[in-house]
This record gives sequence, structure tokens and C-alpha cells, in this order.
Amino acid sequence: MPPAIQRGILGARGYAGMELARLLARHPRVGDPLLLRREAERGSETVPVPVNGHSLPLRPFSWETLEQNQTEVLFLATPHEVSRTLAPEAVERGLRVIDLSGAWRLKREEHRAVYGFRDPDPHKAATFTDSAVYGLPELNRECIAGARLVANPGCYATSVILALAPFLRADIVDRERGIISDSKSGVSGAGKEANARTHFISVADNLSAYSVFGHRHVGEIVEQLGLHSGEFTFTPHLLPIPRGIMSTIYLRLRQPATAAELEACLREFYAGCPWVRIFTPPQLPQIQFSLHSNYCDIGFCLADDGQRLVLISCVDNLLKGAAGQALQNLNLMCGWSEQEGLN
Amino acid sequence: MPPAIQRGILGARGYAGMELARLLARHPRVGDPLLLRREAERGSETVPVPVNGHSLPLRPFSWETLEQNQTEVLFLATPHEVSRTLAPEAVERGLRVIDLSGAWRLKREEHRAVYGFRDPDPHKAATFTDSAVYGLPELNRECIAGARLVANPGCYATSVILALAPFLRADIVDRERGIISDSKSGVSGAGKEANARTHFISVADNLSAYSVFGHRHVGEIVEQLGLHSGEFTFTPHLLPIPRGIMSTIYLRLRQPATAAELEACLREFYAGCPWVRIFTPPQLPQIQFSLHSNYCDIGFCLADDGQRLVLISCVDNLLKGAAGQALQNLNLMCGWSEQEGLN
Amino acid sequence: MPPAIQRGILGARGYAGMELARLLARHPRVGDPLLLRREAERGSETVPVPVNGHSLPLRPFSWETLEQNQTEVLFLATPHEVSRTLAPEAVERGLRVIDLSGAWRLKREEHRAVYGFRDPDPHKAATFTDSAVYGLPELNRECIAGARLVANPGCYATSVILALAPFLRADIVDRERGIISDSKSGVSGAGKEANARTHFISVADNLSAYSVFGHRHVGEIVEQLGLHSGEFTFTPHLLPIPRGIMSTIYLRLRQPATAAELEACLREFYAGCPWVRIFTPPQLPQIQFSLHSNYCDIGFCLADDGQRLVLISCVDNLLKGAAGQALQNLNLMCGWSEQEGLN
Amino acid sequence: MPPAIQRGILGARGYAGMELARLLARHPRVGDPLLLRREAERGSETVPVPVNGHSLPLRPFSWETLEQNQTEVLFLATPHEVSRTLAPEAVERGLRVIDLSGAWRLKREEHRAVYGFRDPDPHKAATFTDSAVYGLPELNRECIAGARLVANPGCYATSVILALAPFLRADIVDRERGIISDSKSGVSGAGKEANARTHFISVADNLSAYSVFGHRHVGEIVEQLGLHSGEFTFTPHLLPIPRGIMSTIYLRLRQPATAAELEACLREFYAGCPWVRIFTPPQLPQIQFSLHSNYCDIGFCLADDGQRLVLISCVDNLLKGAAGQALQNLNLMCGWSEQEGLN
Repeated sequence: MPPAIQRGILGARGYAGMELARLLARHPRVGDPLLLRREAERGSETVPVPVNGHSLPLRPFSWETLEQNQTEVLFLATPHEVSRTLAPEAVERGLRVIDLSGAWRLKREEHRAVYGFRDPDPHKAATFTDSAVYGLPELNRECIAGARLVANPGCYATSVILALAPFLRADIVDRERGIISDSKSGVSGAGKEANARTHFISVADNLSAYSVFGHRHVGEIVEQLGLHSGEFTFTPHLLPIPRGIMSTIYLRLRQPATAAELEACLREFYAGCPWVRIFTPPQLPQIQFSLHSNYCDIGFCLADDGQRLVLISCVDNLLKGAAGQALQNLNLMCGWSEQEGLN
Repeated sequence: MPPAIQRGILGARGYAGMELARLLARHPRVGDPLLLRREAERGSETVPVPVNGHSLPLRPFSWETLEQNQTEVLFLATPHEVSRTLAPEAVERGLRVIDLSGAWRLKREEHRAVYGFRDPDPHKAATFTDSAVYGLPELNRECIAGARLVANPGCYATSVILALAPFLRADIVDRERGIISDSKSGVSGAGKEANARTHFISVADNLSAYSVFGHRHVGEIVEQLGLHSGEFTFTPHLLPIPRGIMSTIYLRLRQPATAAELEACLREFYAGCPWVRIFTPPQLPQIQFSLHSNYCDIGFCLADDGQRLVLISCVDNLLKGAAGQALQNLNLMCGWSEQEGLN
Repeated sequence: MPPAIQRGILGARGYAGMELARLLARHPRVGDPLLLRREAERGSETVPVPVNGHSLPLRPFSWETLEQNQTEVLFLATPHEVSRTLAPEAVERGLRVIDLSGAWRLKREEHRAVYGFRDPDPHKAATFTDSAVYGLPELNRECIAGARLVANPGCYATSVILALAPFLRADIVDRERGIISDSKSGVSGAGKEANARTHFISVADNLSAYSVFGHRHVGEIVEQLGLHSGEFTFTPHLLPIPRGIMSTIYLRLRQPATAAELEACLREFYAGCPWVRIFTPPQLPQIQFSLHSNYCDIGFCLADDGQRLVLISCVDNLLKGAAGQALQNLNLMCGWSEQEGLN
Repeated sequence: MPPAIQRGILGARGYAGMELARLLARHPRVGDPLLLRREAERGSETVPVPVNGHSLPLRPFSWETLEQNQTEVLFLATPHEVSRTLAPEAVERGLRVIDLSGAWRLKREEHRAVYGFRDPDPHKAATFTDSAVYGLPELNRECIAGARLVANPGCYATSVILALAPFLRADIVDRERGIISDSKSGVSGAGKEANARTHFISVADNLSAYSVFGHRHVGEIVEQLGLHSGEFTFTPHLLPIPRGIMSTIYLRLRQPATAAELEACLREFYAGCPWVRIFTPPQLPQIQFSLHSNYCDIGFCLADDGQRLVLISCVDNLLKGAAGQALQNLNLMCGWSEQEGLN
């Protein structure tokens, strides 16, 4: 079977890009992707992607290369400033784009400020910002199907939004009391750059909080959930593990509820969603359970007062939190099953 | 210099007991402790305590052995039900007791329920419960000095109480909005018993929450801080590291404050406390910083609104969270410097 | 497509059994296996095998259950003494058996002694011992295809035999000088039992050697390689990682050789073997490279004298070292491609 | 008590330098060291050395600073090329030097080649090379006491030399059959530089061999043990742990011996050596046992043939393998007990 669609990956040497290359290569309808690197990237021409035991070449990026390969979908696993420049041009050249960076996730100016974008053509950037679709399939399935530019969600954001959306949409959360997400991530979430923070000795036998009240994912979380900034507190921590995210989320319900009602709320919301698993109390997700899978696992614990609620949400940051979700989005954009190539 | 005081440890084979034996043996005023085991404990007579390269013998417990060794202070590193029986008798025989279990920490009946104590003599138990001193030196220094029965605090409780006490005492916390502690502990906090939960494969590359809304340390935290149960939410997690605790604590201030005011509040409260270190924002404690030390490290981050506050508090669960704090209590009971033997 | 073959797994709760269940369930020609437990196993009836998000039931073992399910191939992931009893009966009842234990790997009485088998019918046991095929496809491909009882190799043995066989078959090793394998394994190789040795605190931040000169896998290694016991020294170590094996093997060549000659020797020997990867010096395998794959990675380093040779051989102990190899054997027994279901 | 001796550390920001600063600060006869940095080192003037809760300043290096502080002993925790330049000048200015680098460990030109020294004054360098004392107290106690320039041994070398010396001095090893050390080290041995090799993701859940047949420590091992290069094979591996070294050493005895004889040989050789612990078979050292101590732990296992011998030797690479040994050397140079400040 010839590949149903030609696709390329720019930035295949990062963790998310590598994972995506592996997924595409074993996707029954896709196959080996075209791997591209930017001029700025140094190093070898060949990146070893150990799928089926062969290595895929890494070619210099150019629009001609994409054309010659009849590329229809371009995945950008690039720094956000690169995506901010390349995505509009790619769309204008007729490509569909799935961008794994934070470049196109945010609708509100105030949230984009943390990224410090310097758009050469602010008008065009605004247009693309408006038309970009936030690629969380469980919330935006239909828009994704027809999108030309999909902004693949952040890893933390995925875990937090999926856990909270059902309860916020049902309007049973006491938002004034505030919602808190205490999140923990493995080191691959901190990227491939070798620095004092990712040195083994800094991470092993340790736990550290960072970017308290200032993490970039806060913007997408409050936008997607329709929260005010002051209603949401987010503290990320760096775990001494290679991959995986857990968000422990705290909120208060407007009225006392039962665990059965809350479980029903979750199950109803995610009916027909193959990549969300709901846990029945007292079972709770652990990071291990969703590792190397595209699942977002959601569980909860309700206090005796029926109002204080703790949600536990886990994803593999490189799969449901990045490359797996990108593939899920590709499936939707191509009209395939959301599960294709992800089992 | 002959030891200034004779002391014994019952339960020296657990992690806390072993750590305590090491500390006592190198304490300049103490020296090798008498190590005791209960009848119920199986196994070798000798526990290797690698201090100065020699091993200390582990003898069967009896009151005669204690008398013959002129023991004045007895450390109980035993299960709480054992401490519940032995501590009163020890005190009646003239010994001073430092109990590392949860047996004597709780004043309120409702909190003791989670332990399921079956006191043979409820009246006597009530008397001892009343007279037992909660051994957190930074809060109860004077009472500890004269105590006959010291209830050494829980490891999680130490990290949470020390971070919150200054702000609650200053009455600047909006208690109605609730206080949340999202805490994370290394595996030695789960004890030495080999079971499915402590198996390497269950812990490595993982993170799991447990005992949500039902952990035993909640009682001591709310009692010591004067909170209502409904005002405090506590979620412990098991980290894939051998030792260390971090508590990430969320609260709201009654009125907007500045970081400088909050830091001043902490520094004033802990003036003269050698084992609490305050971090100036944006510096935050990490688990590594307090490992293998008796410090409780406290830092914080204040939101732009001046009201949402995140506290980070770290201790080594076997030192400030157990054996180190027990030694600090011994120092106070003997009139020595709190730092003696802990540097 | 209906499953081409019905198969069951006895012992599906161990690490190897669980891994095998996952592999079979996603094998394109097989599908969900029948999971069985022995009477002696306690606990829940259902083992959650998170393949495609569903759980498979775990049924009590009986020959009737196997018959009703028309089982043709039985995988035994049971203790060796159980396999020693069940395998002959299964074969006599017309089933083909792939046994993951050490029960049927050894031809020589002297090597079986370490297992302490107590065969109820020694004559029958001897017959089955003779007819059992050592299931290392790269060495015994043809015999496996027609075998009724396949003895799946040990994890350490797989890594050592595959690295050494090409050079020993080429008769270029100075066997009198001795061959040494210093091997290291992740904790899943030590089994699922929770004990002092597998407790997180015993393993983390540690390395320990064990069973020096006395490990059970020595027998299969020397038998398969045609060595005398005195010619081979084996030291296994327990690594603080969940899975993966590296064997660092030391030997001396009879005559000086070049790296190119040695690489050619390896590549020729493994031509047509999809699950062995040869590394060209100075590239060397690392444990990470073969994790979650069925590859055995082999690399080497030759001293300037052209005679002292260091081989590095890595496998995932649960895949090429256990369940993956079992599936590779199933493929051969069914006449399918060796790669089927393993990519 | 005023410090008995003034001493400085150049290079106090590396792992070994930091460890040494901590040790000196708590040494009863020494106290806070003078911490110095080279011009080339960027960054803050203050290095936080968390001893007794205070931070020591880090001053720019100059001979004047050393003089003003009446420094008598200078520790060099610098790259080897820096030590190669500074040590001679320091000695000529009347200082005694303990150098933690590889600059002065090697007597033979052929071994120094791997370091690529470019000595500005080759004649002076040769003189200092001749007079430098290899700082392994257990072998060179007397020479160290009077030395002006002590070359502190490499971490791997310490573990290997101490295990082998007793048997080689007793001339019971069949050297022609070759001696092999398969060694494994925690990541702090790879230094503080952040690079692809020390990134958490490269190390965690992994094991890798490196510098096979080409590691710099081979030279000191063969020189100190009086071996020919061809008689010794050394393979270092990087373990996913912060610190600790295990060397598993393989050799053949000339004549069959008993375990008791070998243990006696070890115990006799190390009689009076407080920092070597001999294990009685079947007890074997593990990395954990010597962590955070200055011990070198040595155990062994003898084959049934009485000739094949496996030695296990463990050290903490930052203590007995670096800073601890440097302090032990200081103690000898000052005429103090070898144990002073190391318990």
C-alpha cells in the first residue's frame, strides 16, 4: 500500500521529533517521513531513527525539497520562533501544518507576551493566529478535521485541560475558590539541550519546582478552559524520570456531589474518546500506566464533604503530550480513525 | 569524655532507627547507643551499623537490660501500637522517652481514630496523651526541654507545619479558602517492608499519589496549626528516590502582601532556629539541598495579585523528618545546643 | 482475519508472562491469548493487560479449558519445577509448548543439578530433555520449526551466546586462556517477588554482584557454545534500572586479527538474522539502544595487539531475553516471518 | 583551636573540589579552606558550600592571596594541564601540593602520552615528575609523609590497585594469563560539564561502556602494580547513579589456593589500614556500602578450581576516589591520624 499522504518533519532531532518519526514510520497508512533540519542545526546529516532497524536520512530544509517530495502535511518540531515564521508560509504554499511548538496555541495577546514573538508581518500573524486550531482532539475534533494550521497542545496543558474540561463545562466548579494544578514532569519535557538543569547529577535523587506562576502553558490552559488568570495556579516540578507527567489538580465544587456523579460526568464527556481512560475510585492513575501509550489517564478523589476534589491526570509527555497527539491530529485531518498507528 | 547520658534504641533495624544509631554514635556527648530488638523481630542478633567501621550488637529488649545499662533516655523506633504500650511503662520506670511513631502525637480522639489504638488501660493512655509533648523544637522548644515523653513529629508533618506556622500565627492566611499541601516523599518514608509497593519496578520511572484525604499525618498538622479538618487538603506522592520530602503548599492571604513582608515574617519567626533555612525569592529549595542534613528548607513564590502564595518546604525524611529531629529533641532535653551532633 | 493459531499463557502475572500477553495481543496473526493461572496463585481473577485499552481475564488452569479453547500452543511462564511437570503432559496431549523457564534447557545432568529437579518419572523426563529444542533462533532455526517442546533461553544466556557463537564456531578463540562474561541486568530480571533484594532502597543508587561462579545460566551457555565449564567465568550484577542487559565479554584470539575481519565474521554469521544488529567500531551498543525491542546488539573493541577482544552485547531481558524470543520461536514454529508481531 | 595548617583549594567548583571543601571545613584540625578560582572560570564570586549552613567566598587565584593567607598546603582540583603548570611553581614558592588531577601520577613517558602535556620547561617537568609521590596511602604511606608534591590517584585506579596489590606483591597471580578489570562508575566521575553524555536522558535507564583499551587510568594502574600494558585489560562503564565505583576484577592464580589463604593475604596486607575493609566470602561489597565514606571495600570469590579469582572492589569516587583520599594524604603529610576528619 503506498502511503496515503506525504508528510515531512522539521526538527526531527529533538525528543518529540524523534518520537514522531518513529510513530509515522510504523503508521499503517503513512510510512517513513521526510526528515528535515534547519540550516542553523549543526551536526551529522543522518539521524538514526531505529524503526524496523533502519536509519532515515536527515536532509536540509527547503521548500523545493518539500515540493519534490509532494509533501502535503508538514510537522514542525521546531522552536516557537521558527514555527512563527515558517507555518504561515507553509500554509500559503498549500501545505497543512501541525506545529508542536507554542507558536500558535494562544489567542490572547496578553498570553502570547511570555513568548516574546517578533512577527515580521503582524497583520498576517494575527490572521493565522485567529485561524489556527488548538489541536486537542477530545475538545476540538471537528475543527481539527478541516484545519490548515493545527497548534498541537503543550504536554502539561494536555494533562490539565482534559482533567478539568468535563467539570468546567458542566459548570459545577466553584471557580472563585481557585483551581490549582501541581504538576510533575520527566526530564524529556525539559528538552534535549545539555545544561546544568538537565545534568544527571542535578536531576537524580532530586525534585525541584520551577516557573511558579510564570509557566508558558498557563495561557493555553486558561484560554481553553475559559478561566480568568487569577483563578488558576500552576506549579510544575522536574521529576527524576525520563518521561511521563502527572498533574494533581485541586478544586472545590459549587455543591456537594457524589463520586458516582463525578465519574458519570467524566465518562459521559469522554464517551467515544479512545485515548482517555477514566479510573473508578479508589483506583488512581500512576505515571507508569500511561507511559509509552497515547492515553490520558484521569482519576479523582472526593473529600467526605463532597466538595473538595482532587483530580489525578497522567500522560506520556512525548506521546499524548506531543508526538502521539500530533499523530491523532493527523488522523483526524485525513479522515482516519483516531487510533490508527497509535496502538 | 564519658557519655553524658546513657540511651537506648528499640527498633534499630528500620530506616529511622538505623539513622538514629549512626547519629548517636557520632554525637560528641553520647556515643554508641544500646540497640534493642523486640521479641517479635526475627533475624540476626547483630545489626551492622557502619559507624567508624564497627558493628554494634542488637540485644533482646528487657527492662533489666535497660536498667543494667543505666539507660536514661529510650528512643522508640517501633510500630505505633508497640510505642502505645511501652512508652507509659518506660516513663513510669523513670526513663525519658522519645517516640518516633505516631502513638503520642495526637491530642484529639477523632484524629487518633485512623491509628486504631487499643489501649489496655484507657485512663492511663489518656493521661499520657495529655502530657506528651509534640517534639517540634521550633514550636515547642521549652516544653520539650522538660518533657518525659516526646512525640517526634511525622516527616510530612514536619515539612508542612514549619512552612505554615509563621503565616498562620501571624493570622494573615485566608483559612476559609483552604490550604493545600501537595507533598512528595522518597521511598524510605514507606518503610523497610518489602512489598509490591516498594518493589523497584513499582517505583522506578513512576510517580503515584496515595492516601488522598486519608493520610495519618493530617491529624498532627491540623492540631499543631489550629486548623479545622475541612480547611486542609493533603495529597502525598511516592517519588522514585531513596530519601527526601518536598511539600508544595498553596494558600491565599487575607490581604495583598509583598514578598519582602513574607520573607521578613519567616525570618523573624525562625530567628535563632539553627535548623530552618529561609530562601529569598526567586531562589527555591530543592530536595537535594537538604538531603543528609537536619535542615528544613523553606522558600516561597507570591503571585502578582499579592495573595496567592506557593510555599516550598523540603526535609530529609530520615533526618529532620525523623532521626535528626529526635536528636535535636534529645539535645533540648539534656540542655545542650540544638546543633550538637547534627553538623 | 481470525487468529491463525490458538495459544494460551500459563503464568501471565510475572513480568515475562505479561510482556508475552501484550505481544501476542498485538501480533497480526494471533490476537488475545488465553491467560491462565495455577491453583497455587492467589489473588484476583483478572489481570489487567493494557493492550488496546482492554483487560483480559485470567482463568484457572485446566486441560479442559485448553481443549475447549482449541489451544494449539501453550506458553509456560511458570517456575521451572512447574514446567518440568506440565510440559510433558501438554506435549502428550498434542500441544506444542514454548517454555520460558530453565526446565528444559540443559542436556547435561551435571548442569541440571543447580535446579534440583525432582522428576516423578525420570525416564520420561530424560526423553523430553533429549527432544527439547533450545529456542535460540539464530543458532537452531530449523530444529525450532519442527519442535514440539521449545526451551526458551535465559536472558543472560541469550546475550552471551549470541556474542560468542560466531567466534567460537570460526575456531579463532584461545579457549584455554578462558572466556569471561561480566554481565549486568535490570531488576525485572530478578522477578516480581517483593523481597529485601528487590526493595527500591536496596537497588537504587547501587550495584551488586551475585551468584558469582554459581549462576544457573552458566550451564546453558557452556552447553550451547561447546565449552568446558572451567573455560567460562560468569559474574552477573544487578543494575538500578527496570530492564535491559549488557554483557561485557573478554577473550583472547588464537592469532592476531583485524577489526574488519572480526566484523565480517559477525556479519556473515548473522546474515539473514533480523534480530541481531552488529555495530561497527568504535560504535558500541548501550542498554538503551535495544530497550523495548527484540534486538540483540553486538559490538566489540580489539586491543592494539590484535588478540585481546572485548565484546559488548545488549538485549532487553523481557523481549529478546524472554517474551520476544518466545514469539520469535512461535513465528518459526508456525512458518511465519521471524519479525511478525515484533516490530 | 586555631587551624593547625592553612590550606587553599583551587578549582572548588567541580565535584571533587566541593567535596574537599566540605571535608576540610569539618576537619577538627583544619577548618574553612581558602577557595580559589582561576581567571578562566566564569561566574559568581561565591560558591555555596553548605557546611554548617554558611557559604564560603570564592576568590580569584593569585600567589599573593595565598601568601597573605599564609597558605601552606595547596589542593589543585583543576584540569591536568593547569596542574602541570601550577604545581611546580607552587612547590618552588614553598607550598606543599596535593594535586587531584592526572598531571603528576605517571612516571613513564609512554603513559603520559594520552594526556598530551605540553610542558613549557620539559626539564623542570621531568624533575617534578620524578619527585612527585603517588598518593595512595596504603602503598606509599612513608613517602607521602615527606612529599612536597602528592599526585592523588584516579578513582578507578584506587579501586583496582588496592584490590590487586596484595596478590601481586605476594606473587601468586598468573600475570601471563592476563588481568581484567570490568569497572563501573557513577556520573559524578564524568565531571560537572553538561554535555550529551551527562544529560539525564542519556544516563537514566542505561549502561554504557567507554574508552575501552584507552582509558587514562590504565597507566597509573600498570605502573603502580608493576604490570606490562598487555597484561591488563580495563573497561569502564557509566552507571545511572550519582556516585560510587565498583571494579569487578578477573585473574588466575599460579597455583590453587583456598579462600581462607586469600582472605589472610588481604587482611595481612591491610593490617593497620583504617580505610580498607575486607569482606569474608560469601559476603561481597556493594556500591551502597562505601558511599559517603572513605572506605575501599574489597571482597572476592574463588572458583572451585582454586585458581580463577573474581575480586570486587568498591569506593565512593568522590571520597576514597578523590577528596577523601586527598584529606588522608594531608593527614599523613601533617603527621596526624589517617582517620582525622574522615569519620
